[in-house]
Amino acid sequence: MTDNTAIAFATAIAQGSLRVVDLTFTLSPDMPVIVLPPEFGQSSPVRIQQISRYDENGPGWYWNNITVGEHTGTHFDAPVHWYTGKDLPNNAVDTLPVEHMIAPACVIDCSAQAAADPDFLLTRAFVEDWEKSHGRILAGHWVLLRTDWSKLGPRDFANLREDGAHTPGPDSNVMEWLVNERDILGFGTETIGTDAGQGSHFAPPHPAHHFLHGAGRYGLQCLRNLDQLPPTGAILITTPLKILNGSGSPLRVLGVAPS
Amino acid sequence: MTDNTAIAFATAIAQGSLRVVDLTFTLSPDMPVIVLPPEFGQSSPVRIQQISRYDENGPGWYWNNITVGEHTGTHFDAPVHWYTGKDLPNNAVDTLPVEHMIAPACVIDCSAQAAADPDFLLTRAFVEDWEKSHGRILAGHWVLLRTDWSKLGPRDFANLREDGAHTPGPDSNVMEWLVNERDILGFGTETIGTDAGQGSHFAPPHPAHHFLHGAGRYGLQCLRNLDQLPPTGAILITTPLKILNGSGSPLRVLGVAPS
Ligand SMILES: [Mn+2]
Ligand SMILES: [Mn+2]
Repeated sequence: MTDNTAIAFATAIAQGSLRVVDLTFTLSPDMPVIVLPPEFGQSSPVRIQQISRYDENGPGWYWNNITVGEHTGTHFDAPVHWYTGKDLPNNAVDTLPVEHMIAPACVIDCSAQAAADPDFLLTRAFVEDWEKSHGRILAGHWVLLRTDWSKLGPRDFANLREDGAHTPGPDSNVMEWLVNERDILGFGTETIGTDAGQGSHFAPPHPAHHFLHGAGRYGLQCLRNLDQLPPTGAILITTPLKILNGSGSPLRVLGVAPS
Repeated sequence: MTDNTAIAFATAIAQGSLRVVDLTFTLSPDMPVIVLPPEFGQSSPVRIQQISRYDENGPGWYWNNITVGEHTGTHFDAPVHWYTGKDLPNNAVDTLPVEHMIAPACVIDCSAQAAADPDFLLTRAFVEDWEKSHGRILAGHWVLLRTDWSKLGPRDFANLREDGAHTPGPDSNVMEWLVNERDILGFGTETIGTDAGQGSHFAPPHPAHHFLHGAGRYGLQCLRNLDQLPPTGAILITTPLKILNGSGSPLRVLGVAPS
């Protein structure tokens, strides 16, 4: 059959010279979802409603209906999610370029820093230091923030206190710089948001959302198994559901890297 | 950065020597869903419920909750969907091997036959004839039935008559042969089911479901744009949502082929 780079890629996976890493949490009613201040609309919890299971409702088949928020579990943020991206072309999950759904990734390990300080903030200096070891972040790459946050239990994962969530994320300056000076495709985290838990107090508020989506870039949240990816050399497959004018989507995120 | 087959694949897409084809219908309330006899449980229609849109429910953000059936729109069937696959290991969308989510595809063009006869059935003889031109179908490949059915309007797409749906699909013999003699990964169609509209009257009933899922193989339905894929040389990316014990999932299906 035809010999080409796509077939070579699939063959390398089948033969084991590339490995596939599932970066996705299981979608279940136990999955923590973001909680906003009570004056705002809230995301639905995950609901799985059985239609039949080899029974009188369907003797030969098992299936369910599901309800989720677009920003539930491991999920993708499209530019239209944020007011800064609301007037961009092709800004929703059904219209964004499908070529963007397959792209290389840089993984920045901040796990030690996040373990020491739940409010750890990624800075430009931190990334520039990472680049000294791993090379300059290239245009069109994902930047993934490894914090090992996905290994925490549900309560520590959300880490809600009286004054809101305390989880690591990027500061405002590094997000503007990654978008404008590194031309990244998007930014991904292991936490519930691309922004730090205290990001509503930053200037501008929620700088990851602000700068990424205002420039037509993407977000990924609730990633896991980032410790199984190399700092460079992996690609991400990120295929959101084609929801009509969808602002985001739960999705299966795969990383593919050399074995 | 690291040079490997995964990076080569992403680079070929970014540079345009590979093209990405979106094989997915938009998920919207207009999407036809399968209708079962009234004594059985039914799939939910697609519902998209707005939470906020830069308004008093969320001044800076737009998002929705969505409800879908696991078998709604362009979707994936896992072995646990059918009673023949219910006791297999790793038979649900959250447990199946992620390596299977990237695999080559053979596209069999039956569009002329389906246009002439909505009850057209794919046979072993038809596939053996296809193999004379395109080579033997290799183990681990998807087989996709191109019928151009996805180009029809909603009423002709479902094509419901008093005695049920009339849409093309495979006969029983070819499904058993593709699974056992060609060791395919799965079977995909442009219609609402992997089986023909009249497949409940076949022996065994619904032979695509019966043989595929009983052998741990997969189904894809409501595909579109199969006319943009070559007969061989494309790969499919099929990443179902990681629904807890899910029987299937709406998903974004991408084909990748030489430009
Ligand atoms: Mn989000
Ligand atoms: Mn199905």
